Amino acid sequence: MYEGVVQDLIDELGRLPGVGPKSAQRIAFHILQAEPTDVRRLAQCLMEVKAKVRFCATCGNVAQEELCNICRDPRRDLSVICVVEEPKDVVAIERTREFRGKYHVLGGAISPIEGVGPDDLRIRELLARLADGTVTELILATDPNLEGEATATYLARMIKPMGLKVTRLASGLPVGGDLEYADEVTLGRAFEGRRLLDV
Amino acid sequence: MYEGVVQDLIDELGRLPGVGPKSAQRIAFHILQAEPTDVRRLAQCLMEVKAKVRFCATCGNVAQEELCNICRDPRRDLSVICVVEEPKDVVAIERTREFRGKYHVLGGAISPIEGVGPDDLRIRELLARLADGTVTELILATDPNLEGEATATYLARMIKPMGLKVTRLASGLPVGGDLEYADEVTLGRAFEGRRLLDV
Repeated sequence: MYEGVVQDLIDELGRLPGVGPKSAQRIAFHILQAEPTDVRRLAQCLMEVKAKVRFCATCGNVAQEELCNICRDPRRDLSVICVVEEPKDVVAIERTREFRGKYHVLGGAISPIEGVGPDDLRIRELLARLADGTVTELILATDPNLEGEATATYLARMIKPMGLKVTRLASGLPVGGDLEYADEVTLGRAFEGRRLLDV
Repeated sequence: MYEGVVQDLIDELGRLPGVGPKSAQRIAFHILQAEPTDVRRLAQCLMEVKAKVRFCATCGNVAQEELCNICRDPRRDLSVICVVEEPKDVVAIERTREFRGKYHVLGGAISPIEGVGPDDLRIRELLARLADGTVTELILATDPNLEGEATATYLARMIKPMGLKVTRLASGLPVGGDLEYADEVTLGRAFEGRRLLDV
């Protein structure tokens, strides 16, 4: 055990995700030896994030104002909504520069094991956005795992009857990957989803 | 890229040791969703550690007052000093409950590659503590690696002529370990340091 405040800091750091007791100790000693201004900046960032960041009233993404950057951007295509689980998925998709529509962040995926049902996700808000007929395509970009697939199926069943085009991101081999290291399910999906090459 | 303060927080977290961009993002989102009181406590711990913690004037361990807990403790044996590299080594040794003497924290080890020479370590302070003859044994508990061994040898050569008993922690097989997985150097040391069993 360390003296008072050092142990307090180690305990607090150890509560962060992915930070075990050893890393917490390492970070704490880094902080002990760091410049006071650097540490003050980190502490301020922590407080500011809590004070300033909220979730976009429309799409549920992180935002510093009522609406997030993307919902405020007039150049984005209003006819397509890409449905994701978490704000970090928005960032991942934005990085591809492939998508110019809007997003909808569910805040998770349906998971009976973790007790997350459809009512715990921002599905009502999604339906409200589809009501006026502006949106013509819904891209389901939930994670390609059990919970994500279940959520996509649930949403597709609910929304398809409304006459929208409902699509799902392709499953297949990761680009740059090695065929022999792909798991059977991914490889199977890659076969299923094979495309005609027009050369 | 995230919006303003979220990205600022991710950047600041990413500067901590052992926290890469992915972990920084994960921690930042954890903080976004955490209770404001928890986050405030973490930020306060960070500031308090910088404000309150200093290094013990005698031994160089972390301390909240002029002297650390151990140097202030009148029950500790004044005749033995255990020399370690870092404050975390003090905690590791304290956990064994094997040692009741005092410590001396060097603040590192001699490492020509990293440009750390004897003058960068708290060796002068150590010699000052040995001057009055109270200390009769010096236990060199620097790390069992190249730098730690070099530092131990350097200190032993300097201090032995002063008539003190200078000892080094035993090298050998880790307890609970498996002989076949021990590296040759450790196994060699274990042979060298073999003890007569008196049964």
